[in-house]
Amino acid sequence: MPVDDMDRFTRDTAVEAVGPGRYHGRVDPGWSVVDGAAPNGGYVMALAARAMRAEVPHPDPVTLTAHFLAPPDPGAVDIEVEVVRTSRRHSTVAARLLQDGREQARLLGAFGDLDAAEGPDRVDLAPPPLPPIEDCLDVTAAAGARARSGERPSFPIQERFDHRQPVELASWAVGRPTGRGEMGGYLRFADAHDDDAIDTLGLLVVADCFPPAVFNTPPGLTSWVPPIELTVQVRARPGPGYLAAWFTTKAITRGYLEEDGQVWDAGGNLVALSRQLALTPRS
Amino acid sequence: MPVDDMDRFTRDTAVEAVGPGRYHGRVDPGWSVVDGAAPNGGYVMALAARAMRAEVPHPDPVTLTAHFLAPPDPGAVDIEVEVVRTSRRHSTVAARLLQDGREQARLLGAFGDLDAAEGPDRVDLAPPPLPPIEDCLDVTAAAGARARSGERPSFPIQERFDHRQPVELASWAVGRPTGRGEMGGYLRFADAHDDDAIDTLGLLVVADCFPPAVFNTPPGLTSWVPPIELTVQVRARPGPGYLAAWFTTKAITRGYLEEDGQVWDAGGNLVALSRQLALTPRS
Repeated sequence: MPVDDMDRFTRDTAVEAVGPGRYHGRVDPGWSVVDGAAPNGGYVMALAARAMRAEVPHPDPVTLTAHFLAPPDPGAVDIEVEVVRTSRRHSTVAARLLQDGREQARLLGAFGDLDAAEGPDRVDLAPPPLPPIEDCLDVTAAAGARARSGERPSFPIQERFDHRQPVELASWAVGRPTGRGEMGGYLRFADAHDDDAIDTLGLLVVADCFPPAVFNTPPGLTSWVPPIELTVQVRARPGPGYLAAWFTTKAITRGYLEEDGQVWDAGGNLVALSRQLALTPRS
Repeated sequence: MPVDDMDRFTRDTAVEAVGPGRYHGRVDPGWSVVDGAAPNGGYVMALAARAMRAEVPHPDPVTLTAHFLAPPDPGAVDIEVEVVRTSRRHSTVAARLLQDGREQARLLGAFGDLDAAEGPDRVDLAPPPLPPIEDCLDVTAAAGARARSGERPSFPIQERFDHRQPVELASWAVGRPTGRGEMGGYLRFADAHDDDAIDTLGLLVVADCFPPAVFNTPPGLTSWVPPIELTVQVRARPGPGYLAAWFTTKAITRGYLEEDGQVWDAGGNLVALSRQLALTPRS
């Protein structure tokens, strides 16, 4: 596909094969949480995953784990992919993402083909407890307005999404956390058309693109939450439309916290489960 | 420590350094689910983790992921450990477990020092909904009696634990699943004394040693649940006494299922969270 026809996520995670199991990619500054700060972990994961996927016959990361060693700067990265094993159903793949020879992330995952998968279905989870999308705050527009007025720095990653949240979940930003470790809302890529569906690599960044759920717990831990490890289980290729996502943090112990996520598509299908281990903000 | 003074778990996960980052270990048949069948995934993980831990200054696997490629047979294994990065707070470590040169498991984890960790504490999870231990069934004794009578095969791994379960959670074994994807109970190692505490490598096998929670969903999927990947977050070193564990499976999609676990110590502290991706039984 010509680059100009690609959606921004696909373009910003594009990789070029440069040798056996070796790829070049580029960290785009547009996926950082704050201007000039570290790129989003899920974005780094998706960039590496695109190189991993290129090496195997299975397109979908059914379970992918990333360990974050140091946040890369915007610019060129090298990705080294090792196919550990390929069987009929799954490929197990490891990868290293490096910048100037320094490893920034290590990944390990199993790729499958979710459209070819067959087996029992039984989902005892309820979709996220969200109001209808028309009752949600357009947080992308609201954050953009505050950034343009100089009230807050801009949040580049938020501009990559059309992002709608219940007002109460977004009110941590004005000093009113809900008091519970929860975050959620609807989203699609900012450049998506109504009939576009996010792919299973896009779900990796979706699983990490909301403000941390811990921002809604007192006492307002709202600075950077350094991620140690993120694992995403992708369960289905989403249909078109907005995704609904829900994240919770229920166990903060000695400064470690988990964030568990669920992502559902507009058709009511569970498309991903995620869990990360992170450190609580220092402030 | 002389081998004779070791508890069985420590002995059966012992490894010997044979070169830089290289270890020999031995898969003991006593940790298989059924006589002659595959060893438990959590046991294989703990065996590899002991070699990983030997290479770094941090003793506790704060998050460890294992991908299971093929179940090893009882007998000798080689473990190759790569220290990806060591910082003050964490060591990131990868490992391969091989048998006769064939890779059986690949691991990636971050080790820390949980006793030295400092930071906020806030746990919004409730301990497992278990009755008092004295009201639980001694499932180790019950399974042993059924095996000795020839009614069922023996379950070696069950004999490694002193394992107590609410009767209703254990009744899948006599054709009465609860109908919900849940499993839980109390346990300690069978050779534990009252003042013994399980260590943080032991929690890896605890996180995988119950019958699968899916055994309690209709329609009685009670054969082998092939694990793809298991991630365990260890949060604290347990105090002495029985651990309480609780496992749930809430999303079975096209034959994929997650099993989420919580492990608590006798003092009411959350000591581990686990999640695995597995395939539903074929029967």
